[in-house]
Formats: sequence, structure tokens, C-alpha cells
Amino acid sequence: MRNTLGHNITLTIFGESHGPYIGATLDGVPGGVKIDEDNIRALLAKRRPQGKGETPRVEKDEFSIISGVFNGYSNGEAITILIPNSNTHSSDYQSELARPGHADYVANEKYHGFQDYRGGGHFSGRITAAIVAAGSIALDMLNSKKIAIGAHIEQLGTIKDARFDPIFPEIEQVNAKDYPTIQDVGETMQHEAEFAATEHDSIGGIVEAAITGLPVGIGETWFSSLDGELSNAMLSLGAVKGIEFGAGFELANMKGSEANDPLWMEGDRAITLTNNAGGVNGGMSNGMPVIYRMVVKPTPSIGLPQKTVDMKAKDNAEISVKGRHDPAIVRRIVPVVRALSALVVVDLLSLQYGREYFAK
Amino acid sequence: MRNTLGHNITLTIFGESHGPYIGATLDGVPGGVKIDEDNIRALLAKRRPQGKGETPRVEKDEFSIISGVFNGYSNGEAITILIPNSNTHSSDYQSELARPGHADYVANEKYHGFQDYRGGGHFSGRITAAIVAAGSIALDMLNSKKIAIGAHIEQLGTIKDARFDPIFPEIEQVNAKDYPTIQDVGETMQHEAEFAATEHDSIGGIVEAAITGLPVGIGETWFSSLDGELSNAMLSLGAVKGIEFGAGFELANMKGSEANDPLWMEGDRAITLTNNAGGVNGGMSNGMPVIYRMVVKPTPSIGLPQKTVDMKAKDNAEISVKGRHDPAIVRRIVPVVRALSALVVVDLLSLQYGREYFAK
Amino acid sequence: MRNTLGHNITLTIFGESHGPYIGATLDGVPGGVKIDEDNIRALLAKRRPQGKGETPRVEKDEFSIISGVFNGYSNGEAITILIPNSNTHSSDYQSELARPGHADYVANEKYHGFQDYRGGGHFSGRITAAIVAAGSIALDMLNSKKIAIGAHIEQLGTIKDARFDPIFPEIEQVNAKDYPTIQDVGETMQHEAEFAATEHDSIGGIVEAAITGLPVGIGETWFSSLDGELSNAMLSLGAVKGIEFGAGFELANMKGSEANDPLWMEGDRAITLTNNAGGVNGGMSNGMPVIYRMVVKPTPSIGLPQKTVDMKAKDNAEISVKGRHDPAIVRRIVPVVRALSALVVVDLLSLQYGREYFAK
Amino acid sequence: MRNTLGHNITLTIFGESHGPYIGATLDGVPGGVKIDEDNIRALLAKRRPQGKGETPRVEKDEFSIISGVFNGYSNGEAITILIPNSNTHSSDYQSELARPGHADYVANEKYHGFQDYRGGGHFSGRITAAIVAAGSIALDMLNSKKIAIGAHIEQLGTIKDARFDPIFPEIEQVNAKDYPTIQDVGETMQHEAEFAATEHDSIGGIVEAAITGLPVGIGETWFSSLDGELSNAMLSLGAVKGIEFGAGFELANMKGSEANDPLWMEGDRAITLTNNAGGVNGGMSNGMPVIYRMVVKPTPSIGLPQKTVDMKAKDNAEISVKGRHDPAIVRRIVPVVRALSALVVVDLLSLQYGREYFAK
Repeated sequence: MRNTLGHNITLTIFGESHGPYIGATLDGVPGGVKIDEDNIRALLAKRRPQGKGETPRVEKDEFSIISGVFNGYSNGEAITILIPNSNTHSSDYQSELARPGHADYVANEKYHGFQDYRGGGHFSGRITAAIVAAGSIALDMLNSKKIAIGAHIEQLGTIKDARFDPIFPEIEQVNAKDYPTIQDVGETMQHEAEFAATEHDSIGGIVEAAITGLPVGIGETWFSSLDGELSNAMLSLGAVKGIEFGAGFELANMKGSEANDPLWMEGDRAITLTNNAGGVNGGMSNGMPVIYRMVVKPTPSIGLPQKTVDMKAKDNAEISVKGRHDPAIVRRIVPVVRALSALVVVDLLSLQYGREYFAK
Repeated sequence: MRNTLGHNITLTIFGESHGPYIGATLDGVPGGVKIDEDNIRALLAKRRPQGKGETPRVEKDEFSIISGVFNGYSNGEAITILIPNSNTHSSDYQSELARPGHADYVANEKYHGFQDYRGGGHFSGRITAAIVAAGSIALDMLNSKKIAIGAHIEQLGTIKDARFDPIFPEIEQVNAKDYPTIQDVGETMQHEAEFAATEHDSIGGIVEAAITGLPVGIGETWFSSLDGELSNAMLSLGAVKGIEFGAGFELANMKGSEANDPLWMEGDRAITLTNNAGGVNGGMSNGMPVIYRMVVKPTPSIGLPQKTVDMKAKDNAEISVKGRHDPAIVRRIVPVVRALSALVVVDLLSLQYGREYFAK
Repeated sequence: MRNTLGHNITLTIFGESHGPYIGATLDGVPGGVKIDEDNIRALLAKRRPQGKGETPRVEKDEFSIISGVFNGYSNGEAITILIPNSNTHSSDYQSELARPGHADYVANEKYHGFQDYRGGGHFSGRITAAIVAAGSIALDMLNSKKIAIGAHIEQLGTIKDARFDPIFPEIEQVNAKDYPTIQDVGETMQHEAEFAATEHDSIGGIVEAAITGLPVGIGETWFSSLDGELSNAMLSLGAVKGIEFGAGFELANMKGSEANDPLWMEGDRAITLTNNAGGVNGGMSNGMPVIYRMVVKPTPSIGLPQKTVDMKAKDNAEISVKGRHDPAIVRRIVPVVRALSALVVVDLLSLQYGREYFAK
Repeated sequence: MRNTLGHNITLTIFGESHGPYIGATLDGVPGGVKIDEDNIRALLAKRRPQGKGETPRVEKDEFSIISGVFNGYSNGEAITILIPNSNTHSSDYQSELARPGHADYVANEKYHGFQDYRGGGHFSGRITAAIVAAGSIALDMLNSKKIAIGAHIEQLGTIKDARFDPIFPEIEQVNAKDYPTIQDVGETMQHEAEFAATEHDSIGGIVEAAITGLPVGIGETWFSSLDGELSNAMLSLGAVKGIEFGAGFELANMKGSEANDPLWMEGDRAITLTNNAGGVNGGMSNGMPVIYRMVVKPTPSIGLPQKTVDMKAKDNAEISVKGRHDPAIVRRIVPVVRALSALVVVDLLSLQYGREYFAK
């Protein structure tokens, strides 16, 4: 619901881009989970702009955990993490002109002009820093169960990376990199982003993610399905406009005999020889890697002049978006995808096995 | 949660493919909504197989409303609709052999062998008849508010239809057709399905949907977003493996200056001149048509021999799926997409404007 | 929410007193739970009127389970139970005159006159038969974990039973009786009810319940607390107007030194020497019996003339309620209390230990 | 769920008694609601100890609103309020000895010894300051709709106040007082509390609350009933062990002809001439004042020696609770009751009329 994700282990987020803090409350973690602040720091670092073709608004992301942790371990209660907003240039923002591709016009209508328009307010990608911080805890919880989540840039502008191997996705490899790609295309991608910046324009791309180690049967039939809940979480990101699992949209061009994944016994469990299903049958994990791809639209904030409306004057207008923006945010979304995915998965696991599954 | 969709106006579904009944409970409809059984019947008819390249299991879908309706109007309480399963051939199904592309193996693991394996049990597409019946009521509720939802087959196998006009989608036109396409490609599509059947194989495709008339601002930031909730609902269908909004995955190949939809005043409200966003900004409706596309995988039940496992013997095996199946279910998913979309939208509207919004 | 109770293992109810069926959907039961129809039948029998001072509307309560059960065991999916309404005398009811003490006037306002007024519609105690049927399954699930729930009539009119022993509540003893009391006061209570009937009046009372065998720590801090969720469930019954745990309202007259339950080691676990807390500290089970008491108001349907309003004429009026009613429903609420309590407890246990806790 | 209350307008709380902050997130408030910090300050002041027979731990409760408010009005997004914990004496607390009447032993078991034991951690009444701050906003939202909520001390130890007039409850009168009683018994009550303190003991009491101005029909049948949701909210407070509506437990001693509230037309709406139902029929508001009473147990922290257990040594022990405690917390619970009630009511109203009901 709204700013709360999940059922049994839940995330609640709050904060605006130019307010004093953003934050997240992670509720339902049992007592005794080791909280590794270094891991949170490291994941936040992966989300931070790096200068090459990314926004010069670099926040230090000095978070503080103000509840739910005692002597380095979860104390069983709601974990709240605060991240101060330090590097804000509110004067770059005007309330009258709606920025195309942003939620400005919609928010102005929905909230009757009372929305915080500075930097997109609560709709800002800035909020994802809080998701990343909480998601880092979820990733650690999964890690203790040998469940891993990785993601990489499959495409940035015109540059493409390989796709994950559908049976043995290269999770560790991409998670270890500063610029997460499977092949050696990171530098070219960054050049493409820098070039877009020189044109005062922006580019988009595709992020691919994979989850390995999930037990069979996670996710519920119909409305709490694994793929449904992951889709809801991914589409919660304003920049993500589509998601596909396994062979995805390519399945429209396949026959059943090509699309079906043949089953095969490996020891006492069944595997599939291909993974067109992306690890999900009937909304539940089938024991194979869960593989999904999200399209990330080009950053809507661009310097080029665009047609728009003046929401106060109720008239047509033109805008060249100022402020400090990323010509491409695809790389920065990668840790967000991992974080959100981890939050979905710990919640679904807890419905099946209970919160105690994650207790020390 | 599980078999319950929504927050304030909720759908709960139950039943198995070869049990006595399937059904749906629609809760939260205010008192005084006219319940049109003819509309339910008509939408169920659109979901029913038509013979050409579709399953010979034709259910009459004689539903009965056993609660929540009094003298033809909603009485304010939970509306439960029962649909009997009449035409079942349970002996076609075996419990040992997992059908590739189905949830058989997963269900067997998750439910420890206690699942109803006949015809896929609760995982069967059969359950969508109950969704369609309840969704028909939601469609009528929206209709009374001048909100329309249409869907068509954008692709079936190798045959493609046009896409919806992104500004003026041809909703009425496609909803009126038995075989819902914009262009005159229905017959060719049916031939393709019939041909797949002769090969004991199956084909998939793409369904495109559009919602018009939504007020600006429907859907909530982040985790109850309009696109997120629609995605969760669509991915709840086992056959749907991906969804995209507006320009969708094509956005990865666009620049910000191409992707952003320019705003323009039309009277006292702003429209966008293009609709690459698919009517959604920041997770909320922006007043333009909401347009989304779902990939439907080829029907997994095929007559061709496939590698699989014997779940009892824990050994490799081969299967040729018997039973009566659709070589293509894309057409039959069209009314399901409309029904589920309507259920999502009435719920989100009720959070903003209350259930009373729909009261007589 | 509304007609759905619980988070992970949920109950959804539907139906009206004079509709064709009432029913319940129990969702979240894992695969492999033995479903004992005889136990359902036996618990329904305990809820049925017995003639002495109870309504002559005796329903046979022939239920059928139409989903979720396969070969006598839960199949992991939503279990729906239907109970037909057979013995209805709808002509006893008028739509104009609001019956005092009932929801008639409120329903008429809330649902704009579209409510099913016959026998109270969905507000009727009749619906509790569906709760009892579903609750019987929950009671069996708890039983397999050595968790027992018992209830008895602590007071009926002027006749009082003993209270449960706070440390060793006489659960088995009262559950075994047709007329559930600890002491031998059942006959006198029935006489009191019969006498009220001769006066065309009705009486109320108090039901006391106890849960034993709960692990320590069930229930969540603050808003999903064990006592909070039980209270919500009990107050969902229109006839219940109050609840107290342990020493309850008597605590207002005690000092801390009297009210606090001293702790004592018994083997490797702590017990309390008294049980003024009713087995709940900080919203969670403390390992002692959970003991609570509910006040049941006198049946509002009485034959004596009462001042009321004519909702159509918008004028004052007088009513003598006809129809077949219980002069006392306290005994019949006892199995409902057990059923609802069991549903709350299985849900809370599943949040902590997972649904799999109850799997075979 | 857990630390989140409500469905459409939700409260999430976090923090521990001796952590750096406690806080609350109020989500679902529409844009344009005036946020009156003075009112928050005033309500927090009513919850603060006053010295006479109350704890010497006086927190300044300097709150800050870190999200959701822009230029003095709600901006439509989650409102988070932080309250720093300044005056903590953590060294007063030991982890080994369970304090009788507190959740110490339960928390130690549930959280495997990882709970924050200092001052009761998250189970501390300290957290109610955050509830009060958020509830103040809800009270203001209701006030704009002419809905008022008042509460007073009906009993403290042996001293009793009058009860609310059931038709015209003295809400304004008691809300205006520092020591909220109807009759002039405040001073005597405080003496009783001071005397208990000199005995190193504590006393309890009863709080009575009333809601006026509610439209007819608020609250949903069965599991989101007005009385059920209020009960869940009230029982979420560890000190509250019972609740009753209207005539409450006294209904067990009444006949139907006495208990039923006669209806009477007043203009075009029906009122009841008595209010034994406490303003609730069938779980919904009937237009009369909603009146309910909560028993508050004596403060469990007392200086007298008590039997307890050493949770580390797993042995019996004795404890005299040190630290700074209230010999009576009844007065301090009064604003908490008002705050929680307001949060329940705004949520239920929003389900019926939408969040927009509260928009400017």
C-alpha cells in the first residue's frame, strides 16, 4: 500500500528530494539478524553518481539507523534508517512549469498544488537511496540462506551487454564490478552517456536481474505471485516502464515446443534444461534462476528546450530543465533493483517459512 | 494477498479446474450498483473457446450470484459468484508426470504432493472465468463514470495487428468484435492457430490494452502505483510473462528528447502530444489513455512428445500432453485482461474517492 | 478488511440470512492438512439451536466444501465452504420498520436502501455458521500442535458459572458438553432463557474463552497484537459489546503489587504464579493460558412492543418483532468464539513460523 | 500489521525507549491539509508527566516533521515525525531480570535475547508520544468535519468520576482540562497516585472516550467494524486489558427490552433515546455518540520487591524495579486514546468517502 511494500516483512519509505531527510522503515525482521553497516554503505556507494555521464549532485549518503538495531543485531522491531539530504539546490526548481516526462503535472492535480515540487519531491529517484539501505539488510538475510541477487546493465543507449546465462547467471561477477556489465562494455557505455550530456539530452536502457538459490514454490498462486510482486516492485520506479521474465516478449514468436522448458532429474530434484520461463511457473519459483529484465526510460530531465505547460497561468510554455541531472540513470538503478527484489523475496519467504526462518 | 486482489474493493477467487465449482467474491461494492447479468454472460462468452483453433472443452459458464445482490442491485455486501465445472475429463490427467511449462512440478513440491493435479487444479486458466464474471461488474461500475477499458490481440504467432492509436485508442471497435483486432487479421490469426493444432503444437502472442477516461492522479506513489498494480494483476496470469507501458521496451532505444511527451493545454487541462509514457507518470494516471502490452506465452499443453520427469519415481520420462487444449489462448485472455484491469482501477479509484464514488 | 480476516491465513465470508447460501473461504492453509468433515459437522451442531429457549429456525447446516480439498486433505489452495439456507421465512420481515438493537437503520442509510433487509441480511448471526465451519479446520490445525481453545457460558441472565481456573482452565471439560458450563448450572440457565421467552423478552450474558499451548511470543507488538487481533475478531460479532483479558476491568481496583504476575522458573521456562495478565504481555503470548471474556448483549429481536421509526415514511412507529428468534444466543456464540479465536491464532502463528508450520 | 495501523490512511511507528529517536509515519493524508504544529505540541503536553504522582522522566518532546509537509500543509505524501529521546538513564536497566507485568520475558524469548531491554525498548509507553503526534493531525482532520473525540479518567484507583452523558458527552469540557475529569475529582485522584508512590506501589483505572459527529454507517460489517478496529487499536496499548462499548459488560444483566435503544425521528434522521449500544450497531456508527471504556492496569514498574526470574541464569530471583516510573499512567493515556481513535476513524472514513474527503 502506497509507501509500504510487503505483507509480513515490510518496507515503508518517506521523504522528499529537498526535505531534511529521506528514510525507510523495515519491519518484521526477527531478532538476531546481524546488521552490517559496511554492506549498506557499499550498496549506497553503487547507487551514487560517479561523475562520468552522471549527475554532479553527489550526496554523501551518511545514513543513521535510529531504531530496530541493538548492539549490531536486529532487536526484532522496526528498523528505521535516516539519510540526510545535504546537497540540495532548491532554487533550481520552479513550481509553475511542468517538466515533461516527470510527475509534476500529475502531482499538481492530485495534490491540489500542495505537492513539494522541488526536485520532484517524494517522486524523486533520490528516495531510492532509502530503499537501497533497507534492501541491503534484506540482501544480507538472503545471503545467509545462500540466495543471491545480481543485476547488470544489459543495454545503455545503443550499447548492449550480453544477457545472463539463463542457467548459471554471472551474479557474483557483475555484483563485484563498479560498472556492472558481463562483457567489457562499461567504458563504451559511459562514453555514450557523456556524449548524450554534451547534447543536453539523455539515454535509457535495460537492466537485467537474476535470483539464484530460491527454494521451489516461493510466491503464491495468483495475486501474490513471485513475478507479480516483483513486477509491482519494479514498476514502482518511475523510470521503469516494462518488465519481462525469462524469454519475455520473445515468447510471442515461439511455439510451445520451443518455449516449454524440458524437465530433467538432477539428483533428487528436477531442473529445466532451458529457462524460457525465467524460473517462474504458475507464479512460483521453480528452482531455476529467476531472470527478469526492466526497461529504463531515458532520464526525463534534459537541457534541450521542450514544449510544456505553465500550471499556474494555465498556458502553453517552453522549458529547458536546469539543475544537475544524470544523462543516464541505468547504472544507478542496478542496486535499487537488487534491493527491491531482495525485499520482495524476504517477504514471500517469510509467508511460507515464517519470520523465524531468518532468525539467528 | 494470495487469492485476494485489491485493498478497498477486493476480489477473492477460489476453485479448481476439476472441482465442482470455481468462484469469485467481490467485496466493497457500495449499495445500489446495478448488476447486469447479461453483461456478465456476454463477457464470459468472449472468454469461451470458439472452436477454431481453441479447446473443445466448452463450458456453459452458467453462473449464479449467491450473495451481495438483492433485487438486481448490489446490497453493499460481498458479491459471490459461482460457476459450476461441468465438462471435466479428469481421467485425462496423471499425477506422476509433470507437464513442461505448467506449474505441476512446483505445486507438487510446494504442496507436498497434496495438490489437485487434475487439469492444473487452482493454477488452471479455468479460474479466469470467475475473474471475468466479477470483472464485468467492475467494468460496469467504470462505465457509469465514463471510464472504458479495451483490449485486442496485437500479435498471434507470426500475424500482427496494428497497435492502438496512443491518443485515441480504438476501444469500442475492438470490444465489439468477437475476434478482437483493430485491423482485419482475425481470420489469418485463427488459421495460424489451427495450423499449430495440426502440428500438435501451440503459439503465443501479445495482448494490448487501453484505459480511457481515468481522472488525473489515480494510482499512488511507489508501491500502489497504477502501473505497478496493473503489472501485478497481469503477471498473476500464468501465461503472461511480461508487460510494458506506452513505448515500453522501445524506450531503451530512444533519447530523452524523443521519449518525453510534450505537454499542451487543451481547454483547462493539459494533454500530452505523444503518449510514450502510456498515460502514467510517477505511477499515476496523467489523463491520457493508459496503454499497456502483455506477452502471452504459447499454450504449454502440446501433443508433441516432451522431456519431463516422473515425480513419483523421481526419474526422467517423456510426455505427450493429452486432454483438450487451446493451441492459442491469446484471444481468450483478452476479456480476462479487461476484467482484471477493471478490478484494479475500481479499487484505486475507491482509495482516492471512496467506495461511495460508485454508489447510485 | 471488511469480510476478510487475517494476514497470511485468511478467512473471507459472504452470504445473507435469506439468500441461497452463506459461505467462507479459508486461504493460506498449506497442502496436506487433514480436513475432518465430522469435526466441522460437530462444531456446527454446537452452534445450532436446541429448542429450549432458542430459535425454532433450525437449519440442517449441510455444508459442502467446493474447493481447496482433494482426497480429504487440503490441496494448498483456497478452501471454500458453502452452507445452504433452507429454512427461511422471508415474509416475516418488513423493510420499513427498523428493529431496535439491530443494524437495520444503519444499513438502510449506508447502503441507500439497497441492503437485503430480510433477517438482517449479511449482518445476521446466521453468517457465523460459515465462520464456525472454517474455524473448525483452524481448530484442528492447532490441535495438531497441542494448542487448544475452549469456551463456556460464564453468565446467562442472572445465572453465573464459575470462571476458568486461570492456570489450568477446564477446556476439555467444557468443550465436551452440549451446554458448555464448568459448574452444573446449564439447566438453570436454560430455564432462565425459556422464561424470558414466555415474557417475549430476551437475556444476555458473558462467554469466557481460554487458549492453552501457545508458544511464547505469538502476536506482534502494537497493531497485530494477540489481544488486539482477538478483540477485533470478537467485536466483529454484533452481539459482543466488550472484551477483557485476565483480570480485566477488575484491574482498575488493584494495585501494581497485586496485579503483576510473579514469575517462576519451571524447568527451563518461566511461568507466572497468577494470571492476571490473561496470558498476554506487551501484546504477545507469555506461555500461560490466554483467558478472555466477552459480554453478549440480550438478543435484540423481542416480541414486546418497542418504539422505532418507519424508514420509508420517515416517521415514528412501534414494532413487535416477529419471526423465530433466540431469547438467548449466548450458548450458540460459544463455538463461534472458539472458531474465530482459532482463525486469529493460526494466522499469527503463520506470520512467525510460516504456513509450512502447519504442513503435514 | 505489526507497527502499521490502518488500510488507506496508515500509521507506522518505530523507535525504542532508549534509542536516539522514536517516530511515526502517517501515510495517505491528501494534499492541502493544514498541519498545526501547535496542536501537536499541545497534545504532547497533555501526555507529558506533570510531577504529581507521575514519572520524573520529563521529555521535552521536541518533535520535527521531516517529510510530507510543505509550507505548513500536507503535500500528499507520507508525513514522518521524529521525537528525540533525551532524558534516558539506561543504566537503570538490567537485561537479566524480567520485570513482572512487563514484556521483558516474552521479548527475550521471542527475539532470542536480542531485544533492546532498556526501558522496555519498543514495548515502552514512550512510543505513544509518536502516536500522539500523528494522532493530533488526525484529530485536526476530523475537526474540520465537525467530528470530535474526547476522553477522561473515569476511575483512578478508588476514586471515580461520572460517566459521559451518553447522548451529550462532555467532550469539550474534558478536553480543555489539564486533568481530564467531568466532576471535580482530579485533585483527589492525584493524591491517590502520590500516596501509591509513597508505598512504592501503583494504581490503575478506567478511561472513557466518546466520538461525536460521525456520519451514519462508518465501519464495515464484520472484520473492519468500527468497534472492532477501535478495540484492536486500544488493546495495542500494553496497559489496556479490556474495552467495552455503551452499556458494555452491564448488558449481561439487562433484558432485551431494557438494552435495546428505542429509535425516534428527529427531523429527517433517526436518533436513539438511550445509548446502550454506544453508538455502534452491526459494527457501524449509528449517528449517536460512540462511547467506550478501557481498563488501564496499574503501572507494572513498582519499587516493592517482587518474585521474578533471572533470564540468563534461568533461576528464580527477586526484583525491586528502579528507574523513574509513574505510579499511575491513566491520565497520560487519555491523549493516546484520543490520538489512536482519531487515526482509526480517519482511516475508516477514507475507505467510505476516499482520502479526498479530507482534502482542502
